Amino acid sequence: MIPQWLIEKKREGGELTAEEMRWWIAAYTKGDVSDAQMAAMAMAIYFKGMSSAEIAVMTEAMMNSGDSVDFSTWPKPTADKHSTGGIGDKISLILAPLAAAAGMAVPMMSGRGLGITGGTLDKLAAIPGFTTQISLDKMKRVLTDVGCVMMGQTAGWVPADKKLYALRDVTATVPSLGLITASIMSKKLAEGAETLVFDVKCGRGAFMRKREDARALAESLLRVGQRLNRKVVALMTDMEEPLGRAVGNAVEVTESLEVLRGKGPRDVRELTIELTAWMGVLSGVFADLENARAKLAALLDDGRALAIFRKMVAAQGGDPDAVLPRGKLCEAVRAEKGGWVRFVDAEKIGRAVLQLGGGRVQPGDDVDLGVGIEGLAQSGDRVAEGAPLMTLLANDKTRLVAALGLCHDAVEVAETQTAPRAKVLEVVRGEGCAAG
Amino acid sequence: MIPQWLIEKKREGGELTAEEMRWWIAAYTKGDVSDAQMAAMAMAIYFKGMSSAEIAVMTEAMMNSGDSVDFSTWPKPTADKHSTGGIGDKISLILAPLAAAAGMAVPMMSGRGLGITGGTLDKLAAIPGFTTQISLDKMKRVLTDVGCVMMGQTAGWVPADKKLYALRDVTATVPSLGLITASIMSKKLAEGAETLVFDVKCGRGAFMRKREDARALAESLLRVGQRLNRKVVALMTDMEEPLGRAVGNAVEVTESLEVLRGKGPRDVRELTIELTAWMGVLSGVFADLENARAKLAALLDDGRALAIFRKMVAAQGGDPDAVLPRGKLCEAVRAEKGGWVRFVDAEKIGRAVLQLGGGRVQPGDDVDLGVGIEGLAQSGDRVAEGAPLMTLLANDKTRLVAALGLCHDAVEVAETQTAPRAKVLEVVRGEGCAAG
Repeated sequence: MIPQWLIEKKREGGELTAEEMRWWIAAYTKGDVSDAQMAAMAMAIYFKGMSSAEIAVMTEAMMNSGDSVDFSTWPKPTADKHSTGGIGDKISLILAPLAAAAGMAVPMMSGRGLGITGGTLDKLAAIPGFTTQISLDKMKRVLTDVGCVMMGQTAGWVPADKKLYALRDVTATVPSLGLITASIMSKKLAEGAETLVFDVKCGRGAFMRKREDARALAESLLRVGQRLNRKVVALMTDMEEPLGRAVGNAVEVTESLEVLRGKGPRDVRELTIELTAWMGVLSGVFADLENARAKLAALLDDGRALAIFRKMVAAQGGDPDAVLPRGKLCEAVRAEKGGWVRFVDAEKIGRAVLQLGGGRVQPGDDVDLGVGIEGLAQSGDRVAEGAPLMTLLANDKTRLVAALGLCHDAVEVAETQTAPRAKVLEVVRGEGCAAG
Repeated sequence: MIPQWLIEKKREGGELTAEEMRWWIAAYTKGDVSDAQMAAMAMAIYFKGMSSAEIAVMTEAMMNSGDSVDFSTWPKPTADKHSTGGIGDKISLILAPLAAAAGMAVPMMSGRGLGITGGTLDKLAAIPGFTTQISLDKMKRVLTDVGCVMMGQTAGWVPADKKLYALRDVTATVPSLGLITASIMSKKLAEGAETLVFDVKCGRGAFMRKREDARALAESLLRVGQRLNRKVVALMTDMEEPLGRAVGNAVEVTESLEVLRGKGPRDVRELTIELTAWMGVLSGVFADLENARAKLAALLDDGRALAIFRKMVAAQGGDPDAVLPRGKLCEAVRAEKGGWVRFVDAEKIGRAVLQLGGGRVQPGDDVDLGVGIEGLAQSGDRVAEGAPLMTLLANDKTRLVAALGLCHDAVEVAETQTAPRAKVLEVVRGEGCAAG
């Protein structure tokens, strides 16, 4: 096949055949299609879109470009969750051991943070000794012994996506629904879990800011998941405000441990239970959501999920009792007047943590695991004049001052109390999307 | 500047500032902007277009990416013609010495053929010994001694265009009005001629098939030319039928020599005179077109243009009396019935010559200079049943058979005579396009 003819076909709004799409992804992985040709194709896809058939074939071809795991004969039902990323989103750290405690096997592959969005791998890196760079054999061993495993992609993992993602990042071709779907799904499908629950974040602290964009992504993910015979559901959740009271890396591990001890912020606990409940219902571990919620709450309250978390940390080389890194400088942002917290701006909080050094501006940047924000006020909190609305942890004075500048108006205090925002906006099941 | 931010700006339909565009082209030439980023930008430009200000700045930046010549103090008025390419278009070979005979200096840089469109450099290569790879010093010497010079681009010539053109070819980003304009004009402006006449071909044998596309290109070329202070005009000319009776390389040199001897096909002679007349009028050598046409006809009829052609060939290492290469096999296509030729299909003739090996499918292909078509019937010709409509020259039997298959219905014979098609469709002066 002639690469430029396929680019031209897409440029003119045509649909690539399954054969053409498979050839394209294989040739790009091998280098027979150049980065320049892939960049032109990606831009043409940005403008002309992809059909759901094209997205499914691209996803499958990318998944098949490298290693993958087959859990179809695994003794327990395998399930996983994927979040499109937000501010303070530490759900994975709690959800994986919680689902394992409920009887699921959770083989979770996570990514690193970029921009204001944190990454699970960075949070785990804050646990001394914990390694997420493990082989597939080791992965299976931990999954058997513990019930859950949390890892980064191995070198041979979905190389087509690795190559394409790096290219899209520098060619302004990231925001394409089809390419985003194929990127997320190829990794999640290679991971092998039979049940997949998507947490599609929506709002100023998320990649998708508009409700209709988030819904389109949710539906696109479900269509591909169904085509490829997975049990899938997507929860569209609010990301106008951060999740929980801690944003950063070590501080989010600490908050996760609180939730695993049956405490911690209510929104984090409830959303974790909700997502895990869907995993359990779809994979047949629970009969229904109500039953699931009650049982999962008990697994948090009685310490069984925490025990699995500690076992996983130890199995992956970490010390569950280690002291976590913590920024040497700290400064609070205080309420200028008393009242009730009406809104916390997720984007401002995210930018502040990035400014502190807790995230990456460029993919290769180092992350300072000890910095971040803790004790963050949440909507509905009562605050007195002069009381702290949050505390910033930093390791650099200049960065701290800049971050304080971003935070000073991130929390809105009103004279009357308002109810906290609902976290789950919509549940998308994708019925009727499975055609074709 | 961050390359992906500029791509994103264009992707969203924004206009790059002059500073951004200059930076972009310089960075691409140096390699700071990668091929992949340029490909994404080119595809975004394909979809979103460029303003005339952007095109002008891109043209100037590309022109300034390498060598260029300044003829502003040259003793004679400098003028050149550029054709967008067609079938049997050998005008340059006649026009350059004709314009020189009329008192202009013609520093002509030409390109190689690609696809069904021939290239002047390939035609010149059919003259034994003639070299178009000459230095700028040698170019100026020949221009001084002869009055015209015909050459290929030197290595340092508009490197940004060279790099970008090769990239566009493999990334399906060729057909963008802005990029086409910048590519043509950057080379023509670097060449330094003060007067530029464009022959914008339109029809099935040309890059632009539709009248409105050809007009848009003509206007775009004129806008940039005027912004950069050149005297410019564009003639939109018909390319539904081939020019002249010979299509190939050596055969077109032979036909050019016939026209330089005051003979040859009427359409070639008249279009050459018309284009040269505009060059002469714009550069002040002639008072008006009527005067110009008469004087130029005389320069063809009395052999003065031919003498300059022979002098140029000798000055560039060629032998004006050499025998030209000629295919060893020849076969005629004959009229199945008698009558008058109503139409000759330029595209079929072009494809046949490509099939014979007289052109390039890929940029790196070799060209067989001796193959082609001669004695081609023209609209209005009277033909008898069984009389030859054309003769194919080949060096390979298989290719000859394939080419015959393409040619057998390329000439339409009717029972009644029709007038030949007008060659000049429109003259575009670009008044009112010079704003901004």
